[in-house]
Amino acid sequence: MEVFVYRKGSDEVEEGFTKEDLPALLADKTNVVWVDLQGETPEQAREAKDILLNVFNFHYLTVEDCLETRNQPKVEAFPDYFYFIVHGVKPEETSPVNFTTKELDGYLGENYVITFHVERFRSIKKVKNQIRSNNFVCQRGAAYLLHQILDQIVDLYMPVVDDFDNTINVIEDRVFQMKRNNTKILEEIMDVRRAVARLKRISARQLDVLYRLSNGEFPQIPQNILPFYRDVHDHLLRISDLSESYGDLVSGLFDIHFSVTANKTNDVMKLLAIFSAIMLPLSLIAGIYGMNFENMPELHSPNGYFLTLGFMLLIALTLLFYFWRKGWIFEKSETPADTVVEEE
Amino acid sequence: MEVFVYRKGSDEVEEGFTKEDLPALLADKTNVVWVDLQGETPEQAREAKDILLNVFNFHYLTVEDCLETRNQPKVEAFPDYFYFIVHGVKPEETSPVNFTTKELDGYLGENYVITFHVERFRSIKKVKNQIRSNNFVCQRGAAYLLHQILDQIVDLYMPVVDDFDNTINVIEDRVFQMKRNNTKILEEIMDVRRAVARLKRISARQLDVLYRLSNGEFPQIPQNILPFYRDVHDHLLRISDLSESYGDLVSGLFDIHFSVTANKTNDVMKLLAIFSAIMLPLSLIAGIYGMNFENMPELHSPNGYFLTLGFMLLIALTLLFYFWRKGWIFEKSETPADTVVEEE
Amino acid sequence: MEVFVYRKGSDEVEEGFTKEDLPALLADKTNVVWVDLQGETPEQAREAKDILLNVFNFHYLTVEDCLETRNQPKVEAFPDYFYFIVHGVKPEETSPVNFTTKELDGYLGENYVITFHVERFRSIKKVKNQIRSNNFVCQRGAAYLLHQILDQIVDLYMPVVDDFDNTINVIEDRVFQMKRNNTKILEEIMDVRRAVARLKRISARQLDVLYRLSNGEFPQIPQNILPFYRDVHDHLLRISDLSESYGDLVSGLFDIHFSVTANKTNDVMKLLAIFSAIMLPLSLIAGIYGMNFENMPELHSPNGYFLTLGFMLLIALTLLFYFWRKGWIFEKSETPADTVVEEE
Amino acid sequence: MEVFVYRKGSDEVEEGFTKEDLPALLADKTNVVWVDLQGETPEQAREAKDILLNVFNFHYLTVEDCLETRNQPKVEAFPDYFYFIVHGVKPEETSPVNFTTKELDGYLGENYVITFHVERFRSIKKVKNQIRSNNFVCQRGAAYLLHQILDQIVDLYMPVVDDFDNTINVIEDRVFQMKRNNTKILEEIMDVRRAVARLKRISARQLDVLYRLSNGEFPQIPQNILPFYRDVHDHLLRISDLSESYGDLVSGLFDIHFSVTANKTNDVMKLLAIFSAIMLPLSLIAGIYGMNFENMPELHSPNGYFLTLGFMLLIALTLLFYFWRKGWIFEKSETPADTVVEEE
Amino acid sequence: MEVFVYRKGSDEVEEGFTKEDLPALLADKTNVVWVDLQGETPEQAREAKDILLNVFNFHYLTVEDCLETRNQPKVEAFPDYFYFIVHGVKPEETSPVNFTTKELDGYLGENYVITFHVERFRSIKKVKNQIRSNNFVCQRGAAYLLHQILDQIVDLYMPVVDDFDNTINVIEDRVFQMKRNNTKILEEIMDVRRAVARLKRISARQLDVLYRLSNGEFPQIPQNILPFYRDVHDHLLRISDLSESYGDLVSGLFDIHFSVTANKTNDVMKLLAIFSAIMLPLSLIAGIYGMNFENMPELHSPNGYFLTLGFMLLIALTLLFYFWRKGWIFEKSETPADTVVEEE
Repeated sequence: MEVFVYRKGSDEVEEGFTKEDLPALLADKTNVVWVDLQGETPEQAREAKDILLNVFNFHYLTVEDCLETRNQPKVEAFPDYFYFIVHGVKPEETSPVNFTTKELDGYLGENYVITFHVERFRSIKKVKNQIRSNNFVCQRGAAYLLHQILDQIVDLYMPVVDDFDNTINVIEDRVFQMKRNNTKILEEIMDVRRAVARLKRISARQLDVLYRLSNGEFPQIPQNILPFYRDVHDHLLRISDLSESYGDLVSGLFDIHFSVTANKTNDVMKLLAIFSAIMLPLSLIAGIYGMNFENMPELHSPNGYFLTLGFMLLIALTLLFYFWRKGWIFEKSETPADTVVEEE
Repeated sequence: MEVFVYRKGSDEVEEGFTKEDLPALLADKTNVVWVDLQGETPEQAREAKDILLNVFNFHYLTVEDCLETRNQPKVEAFPDYFYFIVHGVKPEETSPVNFTTKELDGYLGENYVITFHVERFRSIKKVKNQIRSNNFVCQRGAAYLLHQILDQIVDLYMPVVDDFDNTINVIEDRVFQMKRNNTKILEEIMDVRRAVARLKRISARQLDVLYRLSNGEFPQIPQNILPFYRDVHDHLLRISDLSESYGDLVSGLFDIHFSVTANKTNDVMKLLAIFSAIMLPLSLIAGIYGMNFENMPELHSPNGYFLTLGFMLLIALTLLFYFWRKGWIFEKSETPADTVVEEE
Repeated sequence: MEVFVYRKGSDEVEEGFTKEDLPALLADKTNVVWVDLQGETPEQAREAKDILLNVFNFHYLTVEDCLETRNQPKVEAFPDYFYFIVHGVKPEETSPVNFTTKELDGYLGENYVITFHVERFRSIKKVKNQIRSNNFVCQRGAAYLLHQILDQIVDLYMPVVDDFDNTINVIEDRVFQMKRNNTKILEEIMDVRRAVARLKRISARQLDVLYRLSNGEFPQIPQNILPFYRDVHDHLLRISDLSESYGDLVSGLFDIHFSVTANKTNDVMKLLAIFSAIMLPLSLIAGIYGMNFENMPELHSPNGYFLTLGFMLLIALTLLFYFWRKGWIFEKSETPADTVVEEE
Repeated sequence: MEVFVYRKGSDEVEEGFTKEDLPALLADKTNVVWVDLQGETPEQAREAKDILLNVFNFHYLTVEDCLETRNQPKVEAFPDYFYFIVHGVKPEETSPVNFTTKELDGYLGENYVITFHVERFRSIKKVKNQIRSNNFVCQRGAAYLLHQILDQIVDLYMPVVDDFDNTINVIEDRVFQMKRNNTKILEEIMDVRRAVARLKRISARQLDVLYRLSNGEFPQIPQNILPFYRDVHDHLLRISDLSESYGDLVSGLFDIHFSVTANKTNDVMKLLAIFSAIMLPLSLIAGIYGMNFENMPELHSPNGYFLTLGFMLLIALTLLFYFWRKGWIFEKSETPADTVVEEE
Repeated sequence: MEVFVYRKGSDEVEEGFTKEDLPALLADKTNVVWVDLQGETPEQAREAKDILLNVFNFHYLTVEDCLETRNQPKVEAFPDYFYFIVHGVKPEETSPVNFTTKELDGYLGENYVITFHVERFRSIKKVKNQIRSNNFVCQRGAAYLLHQILDQIVDLYMPVVDDFDNTINVIEDRVFQMKRNNTKILEEIMDVRRAVARLKRISARQLDVLYRLSNGEFPQIPQNILPFYRDVHDHLLRISDLSESYGDLVSGLFDIHFSVTANKTNDVMKLLAIFSAIMLPLSLIAGIYGMNFENMPELHSPNGYFLTLGFMLLIALTLLFYFWRKGWIFEKSETPADTVVEEE
């Protein structure tokens, strides 16, 4: 437990208070109190629970939700405070599709902010440093302090979201080349698809929370602080918009993959058809002159063999020319012919 | 029929009452009365109907709905009570896609909860044990008791939903391998698709019911109990969210199946094309020297045969090299070449 | 025209009134009057129009709508009455996809129900028999009588909807087998698709009508009768839900059909590839020893022929083994190998 | 400019007024004045602009919108009048997919209707004839007169919409046959798809306009005329519904086209596989006995040749029988086998 | 910084004011003041920030948003003014799919308009010229002046949107021809798809802004100016509608591409099947008469060879006729046969 107290008019934030100091600190409504509880170890969790229930008298169910870690973002109003859950994002070095989320629970009262989290939050550490070096944030009151924390959390979404853009482009390029190991690409597409769906879901729920916070529904956030919450909401809206459009791109990847596979199959078929179309007639001719009929006049012609070879060559060239005309082999140059519709 | 009565201030819940005791018990508004009616046998159903109509004077249509078992979740307000239908989930051992639902009907009045069900509910049994061992639940009143029942029912959804996740992953793996018996995989996908659609439908309707219950619409649920209903609503929301995302995954399975099949066809085609492309020219050569022309000088060359064999080998190797360059055979190593776009 | 009048306190319903009796009957507000008009023949239609316009003074446009038969379900409020159109369903014996609908128009006033229909309705006949044998329905007033009619009409949707379920399953089975005449299956899928779309459209519009009727919008339906309308609404909701899910199933049929076709093509390709892969090399060998070179030592070996045949057999067996390993022929048993990913 | 004036109590509509007469005619609030302005030529457009701006003092922007012809349907309220744009439909003889729309702008005031259109409207001509022969329409006031015009315009949508139904069915049949020139069918499908999208868009916007008109939002339409506008709205709703369902059908055409193509490819593959599977083994046998080994005992058997031919025939018949069993050739009769699942 | 001031009753707009003049100019509420701030260089940005914060005292967050350039269109109300962000479109000469957007930030107060932009706007330049030559715009007040700017910005969307139409048609034509380099077409489709998605997103957000501006929500826009904002809204609605329909067309391109590829593959298969079906039987015959059986009576027939050649020709012609009947070769004329369903 870390407690930060800003006394009105004071120059800096005081720290180092214990559970016993809290009631007195909270009683003075001009103070701004921030209690940051971490629940990494069972003892910490037990201590946090004790403080939330016995010092602040928060609703039992919200404390239970704090201690669990599989909750959706939400915000719930109570007469003197509101309870909220938001999710921070934890980028993975391996790949953006492996990003995970971590839960931040908290309460905002008239003159206090409570934050509870099991995992460490870079954003919270940052705000702590900020208020230590500068009393500007605390002067504006508890609601502004909370805004600062949420703003930092939402800011850390952006790099993850940008990584997605890159990942999708890389996969798209590989789909277009599609050299080998298609199945692996498909698996990657599925992974991105899942990750994007997760991102969409989280940012959508989070957006609901910030929409409600920024619309003056909660008396704990004074009118003049609302624009700051709206600002966080707008940032999140951008993230949500981007994740929506990533969803479209990813579902487009399947279409492309499929079309590229169809094209490749078409190419393989053409090759096979060309080979067969050229070889089969020639083989037939060879077969004909391999027949053992007694009376086959051509066989006795001294140039029969060479004429036959020449005829075979002629057939082969004719067919090659035909396939070249159809555009199946030696792709014709793109430049001028491209705009002209040719009869086929 | 099982009747549980908690008298205010009493230490434990009393049981063993009959139909005749009910009017007196209900008249004392400080009592909390739970009447659990089971309708497994026709006699039980008849008895339940009698009690619902004649002791409680519930609306005729709701009693009719109780006795039927094909109703959707809903909640309907009446002046002194509300009537609700929720669905519990019945997991099947064989496969999560075979899960079935069972209907729980009920009424909540100022000081009583009525539950009616044709099939046995593990969740109801659990709550019974709970109130027998602990009067905590009943002290908070009838609305809290009902919340406890609903909470247990919703909790039992979770294992079924988790099983789905697993099932979908297993199918996805099999689609990616796609060794044999594709049609069977397709049938499995269809089964999951149906089951997920069913899960989505049920949880969506149920969510409506719990949303209305948790929003203060019904005077039978006092203000201080609403957060508990909101909690159940949030759990169900998570289930509903998951089933939504399962729906997406399942519809993605068709895309994958399709893409994997297209890839396999492409592979088969390549094999066929390679075989044909190599064998047909060699056969042609063999055919040519099998012709019976009188004048075929090569035939008389002592090394003609061996030169021809060598030439055939050369052609075969050239073509193999060509196909290897195209990446059709002996897949080149992935590591460095992967990032380089090769001209093809 | 059939007129049914229930006089308050009377034991049975009176019939056999004419147009001239209507004004007096309607003037007594304690009567419940049901006028059922059929418009099968032009004379009937003319008579009905005369009564609707001159006896009841209904709005001209509603009377016009009555006489037409291509209207959507709707309900329209007027000061003293409301006008409604609902659709009954007419099952066809041949196939559920050929179901047709028939229009029922009507009016509900304070003490009267008017129904107008061109085609015969089984449901109306049933209600007539009901009120002849039992005055219970009429005692509850005109709104309850109308509810009874609507309830019967909605009940007759259910068998049609159930038939759909069956039809879709039959088609699904045939798609999975896909023996022959694929195009015919596709045509059947399209027919079901259209029929389901029609069912969805009709039930959605109808649902709107019943939602408005059951929500207390119309003063002609007293408060205590509303639950009965809500009941009809719930039945229709179930039908609407089912038709929604049929829509999903049917659009899934295309996916399956497509995947099954792709599988079959894949199988055909494999067969072709196997045949070619085995036969072409053997033919090449035969071709080689069919060449007419003078110096081919093997030809003179006494066992050359038999060794060659043996070699051919060896090649064939090797290739068969290879394809069997790939799982292309003689599908390996599913049980243990299924869970193991094999390198391919 | 054509001006129609109906004076209260008069027997017929007067015509032939000029711009100068308008102020006096409009000042008498018991008159019903219809000014129909056509903007085909620049002079007409200039005259119309002059009247709209200087006689009626309409808002400058609405007059500008009148003179343009690329506006969407809309309705805009002003204190004394409302301005509306609706679209009429202009069927093309060649094909329903080429239907175009023409814009009708107009104003409705207390006692006047103004219509402005660049192209000729059959529906307006019809209403003119109607009011010339019959003063019934004008007696009901300006709002009823406008309803009459809108009703005629919407009525003319129906034949176009019906043509679509037919066109889609024709294309569907051709897709199912799919004899040749597939690409042309695809182009037709795309054309219909575009046309249906256009129809949907127009009817959706138009529906908005009529919904607002029919809901009592505008004081220029008195309460007793609203049902007539609702009637037009209902007609348009039907058109909108139909165009929605056409959209579904058309997007289904791609699915069918695709499935039919896949079936055809499958059929071609089967043919190829059958030919190859039968011919290749026979060719191999012929090849074997064409080998030139010295010691091939069969060659000396007097019946060797005939036995070999017989053996070839046996193989061919066996394979044919095998493919017939698989259902690839000579489709088996559908009747009884259809319901039995055969092992394959 | 450019400042334009219109003094009530004056004939022309005055320019050339500095930061110091602003407070006095703004204090006279009959003036219309337009301050156009450009933020291209860091100094300009710093100056602009100074003016926005210190002269106008705008909310700090809005000033921060001004200086950033990755914001979504939005509008935010403050007591004395509102802040807005809109996006102008910057066409690229290379291709419409490369269009970019540029941000315009601004404020509207009772008697002033502030615009801030980093990049140059043609539309703003145009409005400057307009008000220099004509005091009409300024006479109507600040809100009308802002409308003029927005109108110009939205007008410049139209050419970009029209270019899309053209681009999509060109791609569609190329998909239908599909001569070569399919993958490149796929990449183009993807590019258009992304660009259209971007256009949809931007116009949707912009539409929200203009909807709010045109609905009387902001007191800075007087009632009589609202129709002008509605006019801009309608223009944007048209753009939004078009971009919606482009989205449909583009997603249709994948369907077409896929169908065309399937058709082409089908054609290749047919060619292959025809070649194989004709050549294989003939080769078999040649193979049979190439066998070395001693007793093959036909071989000794003087016309055996010629009869065999004739027989081969007969087979080839029969098969060609068969394939012609199937419509695989030499497509039959379309005209009369098209409407007749032939048995196949």
